[in-house]
Amino acid sequence: MRLDVVTIFPEYLDPLNVSLVGKARARGQLDVRVHDLRTWTYDRHNTVDDTPYGGGPGMVMKTDPWGDALDTVLADGYETGARGPVLVVPTPSGRPFTQELAVELSERPWLVFTPARYEGIDRRVVDEYATRMPVYEVSIGDYVLAGGEAAVLVITEAVARLLPGVLGNAESHRDDSFAPGAMANLLEGPVYTKPPHWRGREIPEVLLSGHHGKIARWRRDEALRRTTANRPDLIERCDPAAFDRKDREMLSILGWEPDPDGAPAGRFWRRHETVEE
Amino acid sequence: MRLDVVTIFPEYLDPLNVSLVGKARARGQLDVRVHDLRTWTYDRHNTVDDTPYGGGPGMVMKTDPWGDALDTVLADGYETGARGPVLVVPTPSGRPFTQELAVELSERPWLVFTPARYEGIDRRVVDEYATRMPVYEVSIGDYVLAGGEAAVLVITEAVARLLPGVLGNAESHRDDSFAPGAMANLLEGPVYTKPPHWRGREIPEVLLSGHHGKIARWRRDEALRRTTANRPDLIERCDPAAFDRKDREMLSILGWEPDPDGAPAGRFWRRHETVEE
Repeated sequence: MRLDVVTIFPEYLDPLNVSLVGKARARGQLDVRVHDLRTWTYDRHNTVDDTPYGGGPGMVMKTDPWGDALDTVLADGYETGARGPVLVVPTPSGRPFTQELAVELSERPWLVFTPARYEGIDRRVVDEYATRMPVYEVSIGDYVLAGGEAAVLVITEAVARLLPGVLGNAESHRDDSFAPGAMANLLEGPVYTKPPHWRGREIPEVLLSGHHGKIARWRRDEALRRTTANRPDLIERCDPAAFDRKDREMLSILGWEPDPDGAPAGRFWRRHETVEE
Repeated sequence: MRLDVVTIFPEYLDPLNVSLVGKARARGQLDVRVHDLRTWTYDRHNTVDDTPYGGGPGMVMKTDPWGDALDTVLADGYETGARGPVLVVPTPSGRPFTQELAVELSERPWLVFTPARYEGIDRRVVDEYATRMPVYEVSIGDYVLAGGEAAVLVITEAVARLLPGVLGNAESHRDDSFAPGAMANLLEGPVYTKPPHWRGREIPEVLLSGHHGKIARWRRDEALRRTTANRPDLIERCDPAAFDRKDREMLSILGWEPDPDGAPAGRFWRRHETVEE
């Protein structure tokens, strides 16, 4: 996979040399190229921004540096044999970046990132490149960053770990939170390792029982417990068909019941009215 | 504000020297200290992880290095006059990190981050420190990273830009997506700057009109357009009292209507059944 990043803070992308992404680069699984947007400015101050049309606070990134940068990066990529680019534009106004979208991006051969600063990039840049390639405007969450670079690190890491051969055994993703399968929509519960005693704290006895069924049940109960506590929005949308009788008992203990009114809108569970939390 | 980060990849945090956070450090507004977790290992291989109790794939980070690291970091902070630490634990099993939570954390004097790798940290570490200070287990979004370091960069940036005096005029947050006020729950629409013509593309005429009322209306319509397209979940929850007659007209054009059934559950809007999208 080829990744290009155009930014006014190339050094912000240094973590792409570290850990999992760094190793994937070293092994040739990822071809990462970081470009300084100011390479494509031609005035003495290397200006990349100007005041917004229509007034208001903040600055807007100009069309020309971005257009010239993307033309060069795309031409260079094609020349070296890359194909099928998609433009990934981190912005708080985008659609949510999810594990599903990470999987989708991991199947593309070439991602071009345009992390912006200030109030964002002049809209015509996205409009222009959208005529040539798929554009993903994505938001990594409901908070505001100073720029898109941190989002690029997040997206790159989420995507890179899904590439074949990138994750080692120590970093399996079979039981990941948000993984497809039995744990879909459930958060992982607590984990423990040696020693069995630490500062007066023990590990849950069941984990020493050697009884695989009981351990699996305990883990599932803990996953239900944590998900109802931290992510009621995920529980609401869990397909009832994915829950067995013991799941339903646990959910009831945790204060949840089926929601027949919500089902048409994809909300299958609601809190008991009568249970204290 | 003091920030401590304990990690096995200190160099991943190098972006904290760059841009907004880097400048805040240089000005003395932020005191950031990054610590290598392996400092607190005492075997030849600097082991920080071991197999999970109860079996299963992946590795779990051990109690001792984290406990020793946190004790040292906390003692050092108190000694230099820091007070009121909170522990921030990035994990996909946490509660969602939001702008509201960024504001909450920006009001604390001292944040201690514990970005984990592998399957996470032995649960007893959080249980132990939760008896001494507030613990925030937070998830920056519904995707899986290789480790918590990228989440620390995200959280730090979102928090730092809210500190008094950190943002310059070019980076105002008055009209931010997710900001409180008139734009609460609405995404920002497109922005434009000079030149007015670029590669055959013009800017919207209204932005040249000088008519502040029309410009404000256009921006609000575009915000509604983008929010309905990318974040129907946000529109659903918009307080009807926040919308005037023109907002409602625009919403209707975009295919949305009041949802009297959903209101008790905080969902005030739904798509028209009959409108094509």
